[in-house]
Amino acid sequence: MTKKKSWAVGIDLGGTKIEIVQMDREGTLGQRRRVSTEASRGPGEVKKRLAEAVRTFVARVGSPPAGIGIGVAGLVDPARGIVKLGPNLGWRDVSLKEDLEKVLNLPVIVANDVRAATRGEWLFGAGKGLQDFVCVFVGTGIGGGIVSAGRLLSGAGGNAGEIGHMMMEVDGPPCACGNRGCWEALASGRAIGEQAQALIRQDPRQAQEILEAANGRAENVTAEAVAAAYKRGSWGATMLVDRVALVLIAGIVTLVNVLNPARCLLGGGVMDGFPDLIGKIQEGVRERALPPALENLEILPAELGSKAPVMGAASLVFQDTEKA
Amino acid sequence: MTKKKSWAVGIDLGGTKIEIVQMDREGTLGQRRRVSTEASRGPGEVKKRLAEAVRTFVARVGSPPAGIGIGVAGLVDPARGIVKLGPNLGWRDVSLKEDLEKVLNLPVIVANDVRAATRGEWLFGAGKGLQDFVCVFVGTGIGGGIVSAGRLLSGAGGNAGEIGHMMMEVDGPPCACGNRGCWEALASGRAIGEQAQALIRQDPRQAQEILEAANGRAENVTAEAVAAAYKRGSWGATMLVDRVALVLIAGIVTLVNVLNPARCLLGGGVMDGFPDLIGKIQEGVRERALPPALENLEILPAELGSKAPVMGAASLVFQDTEKA
Repeated sequence: MTKKKSWAVGIDLGGTKIEIVQMDREGTLGQRRRVSTEASRGPGEVKKRLAEAVRTFVARVGSPPAGIGIGVAGLVDPARGIVKLGPNLGWRDVSLKEDLEKVLNLPVIVANDVRAATRGEWLFGAGKGLQDFVCVFVGTGIGGGIVSAGRLLSGAGGNAGEIGHMMMEVDGPPCACGNRGCWEALASGRAIGEQAQALIRQDPRQAQEILEAANGRAENVTAEAVAAAYKRGSWGATMLVDRVALVLIAGIVTLVNVLNPARCLLGGGVMDGFPDLIGKIQEGVRERALPPALENLEILPAELGSKAPVMGAASLVFQDTEKA
Repeated sequence: MTKKKSWAVGIDLGGTKIEIVQMDREGTLGQRRRVSTEASRGPGEVKKRLAEAVRTFVARVGSPPAGIGIGVAGLVDPARGIVKLGPNLGWRDVSLKEDLEKVLNLPVIVANDVRAATRGEWLFGAGKGLQDFVCVFVGTGIGGGIVSAGRLLSGAGGNAGEIGHMMMEVDGPPCACGNRGCWEALASGRAIGEQAQALIRQDPRQAQEILEAANGRAENVTAEAVAAAYKRGSWGATMLVDRVALVLIAGIVTLVNVLNPARCLLGGGVMDGFPDLIGKIQEGVRERALPPALENLEILPAELGSKAPVMGAASLVFQDTEKA
């Protein structure tokens, strides 16, 4: 990509790191940079670091960008460019667009990170050219986005797509959102870690291989330890993963029956860590969803991995009339 | 409404009766007629009765309509005008549009009945003028429709909106669709009747007032008997209704979190039969949904009652470029 061409800054603002990329209208990536967020120093400091990083980045590219698109983990008001609730950042009602536009003198667009990732997959990945599809990202939490009739759904307040908070169990375990039985309280990476820790307390024998994978320290047991034990054929890990698969199937059946997408894309750390999960999900959804909803349906892995949010965020600069 | 004005035939084709109305572009209703479906005589006979009823109806109005819109309970292919699966009619892959257009020589549009009802509420009822709202009809089953960014969602195959088949309980009771734990297997009128019958078997003392409301015949116990016992303060009925309310709340929380609508409209026989249900749902959703999803949300009763499907179906004639 030439430096002269129109380009955008794409940013993925996470709780621990800030990813910055250069991207052109066609999705070709140029320079990339990563800085630490240092969220603990508060929103003011993070915004300062972010502005400084963008300034350096633009100087390195050598030509001014058309604008800046930022994906943020949390609830966002895209119209006002405000982060209403960013649990990983510890933010509540932080104005991002206005402040950054002032100091950088460039248009800034703020979007939810998984909605941005959905946009990335839609324009440049496994959702290319589709009118109706759903992205499901199973990581620490569960997030996603919905494209229907060729539009990324935003809802009345810009927060459509909070699929991690579908209620899958009326009396289920508590969720970080304050409710109970949410999808991400049952089937996210965090939930897998919590379920493994509970298994260690309740049935240490079955959980032995999981515990070993975390070097015998129960408090260090996460989804990664479960994945390692699962690979070795641990019965406890297998039971746990089979249950998680069933809950993932249930949530995807809900999305498929309600939205009738042509494709359901699955991505995120849990999908990567448990490679046979996608096969289980494909089979389970085929057994359980309504036949007419299955007629046009493909369940496939997302393609862009960790590049999806930055690419989607950057693309907002070129199509800023559309909500995301 | 004058006979000279452009008008449409709106039809609600149900398992037991066929409702036919005359409606103009503004939603003003004229003549109405109801005939029995006699579904047991097979699709050919039903189509013949339907065509004959429309012919008589048009003759009575005295001027030819612009077209015919038909809402059918079941899974429909709106593009081809086929009823893919009509459980109440006992139909599978019945061509309705082509056959009726041939014999009646008028344009025919076929839609799912609850999607048509959503359209009715959208154009003429409690959803008037909204860009983002959801209709939930809790009757024998649970159905609905989703309007997002000013469009009634259809999905890749025309079957979006099957909210009755959201999975609310991974190991829940079997549903007529072949899956388990669907919303309508837990919280529809049919489910309420089944739960009451199970209560009669398991705990006759608690179910006594429900049984009395059905004149002592367990096999006659339906949601109506539960409603009657509930009004009298029966403890068994109260427990049962409280649980159903919780499941209805959970499903609406899912829809609200995923779609972020400005309004959620509730209608159908169960909502009418248990008048305090809407208050419980309003309260429960407010406690459990994500705060940003609640910011713009109103939960209100649907307005058009049984007229919603016929009015929505008739309106398709005037806006037949849009899918429904």
